[in-house]
Amino acid sequence: MTTDLLDDIVVHPARRLTGRLTAALAVSGADSFETEPVAGLDLTLEGVPGDLHAGFTRAAGSREPWHPRGVEIRSGRQLSIVSEEELAEVAARLGLPRIEAGWIGANLLLSGVARLSFLPAGARLFFDSGAVVVVEEPNAPCRDAGRAIAGHTGRPGDELSFPKAARRLRGVVASVERAGRVASGEAVAIRVPEQWIY
Amino acid sequence: MTTDLLDDIVVHPARRLTGRLTAALAVSGADSFETEPVAGLDLTLEGVPGDLHAGFTRAAGSREPWHPRGVEIRSGRQLSIVSEEELAEVAARLGLPRIEAGWIGANLLLSGVARLSFLPAGARLFFDSGAVVVVEEPNAPCRDAGRAIAGHTGRPGDELSFPKAARRLRGVVASVERAGRVASGEAVAIRVPEQWIY
Repeated sequence: MTTDLLDDIVVHPARRLTGRLTAALAVSGADSFETEPVAGLDLTLEGVPGDLHAGFTRAAGSREPWHPRGVEIRSGRQLSIVSEEELAEVAARLGLPRIEAGWIGANLLLSGVARLSFLPAGARLFFDSGAVVVVEEPNAPCRDAGRAIAGHTGRPGDELSFPKAARRLRGVVASVERAGRVASGEAVAIRVPEQWIY
Repeated sequence: MTTDLLDDIVVHPARRLTGRLTAALAVSGADSFETEPVAGLDLTLEGVPGDLHAGFTRAAGSREPWHPRGVEIRSGRQLSIVSEEELAEVAARLGLPRIEAGWIGANLLLSGVARLSFLPAGARLFFDSGAVVVVEEPNAPCRDAGRAIAGHTGRPGDELSFPKAARRLRGVVASVERAGRVASGEAVAIRVPEQWIY
């Protein structure tokens, strides 16, 4: 019986906050993992057209050890969302002047959202354009991103030190709930749903 | 600044539990909202073939007042999962001998999972068949389900009393992450991800 563990569930009410889309970013070339700021970005229900992570489904990888590698699964990773403040914190930890959102393939760079990496699954981001994005889960720092950063800093050690420094600061992955074109600089309203500990 | 609110985030570790799939249920006829127990049920990445809620996307309805009604959105509601224990509790509250999962259009009836309706977004259900399902959010009791129940009990008042009695006991909606065929009676392993209050 595990019922006893759940007798005292406390439901925290939904709440709203606001932030800003500092930059929308799109892949900078074919086969590119990296992205670069653009004035506007079309979000479709399959994600960002042309992006490596576009699609309703994708092949399972090393992040999902519970699936055989390569099997087709629900995506859940259409978009990578990062925070200006958190990237600045990671840069400070690494002794770097800055880390660009595009170096690690982010699609949306936000500012003004406290500890964005902790936005819970189900949090919705409402853009003025009408686009709505749903948070899926925290993004896990990986060596691929570390390698990309090392390529920019010229410090090979960043490949391994980035994943450590970016723990809980790597942003979130998200899915598009409603299509729209988002513009760099626009305001973002966020709704955090009811929360509890199961 | 809302940062202060988040300085004391406590991360609760991921945990595992188990339950049983008492019954898989499929729609009982064309245009039917109701479902009935079947020996096995194919779960595809678009949900249950032939079900009203199959598809990667759907039209926004009254549950999503933040979207214009009818606009195409990410589904998030492919599957309805309910609990034997919670349905028994709702039935007791209404003075009914029982409420069948099929009356309210459930696709999966589980037993042995404490307070299933509180499984958080991102919780994964692993079936022996290989199918994996991800919880999206709690299901909200609605008058349509109440009307279906009233049709079975012959008590018109249940249309309105069901949504009240079923609050926080209505199960969850979920998406298919990996396809497979689930069988009534099989064991289900559940992984609840790390949790915290944002």
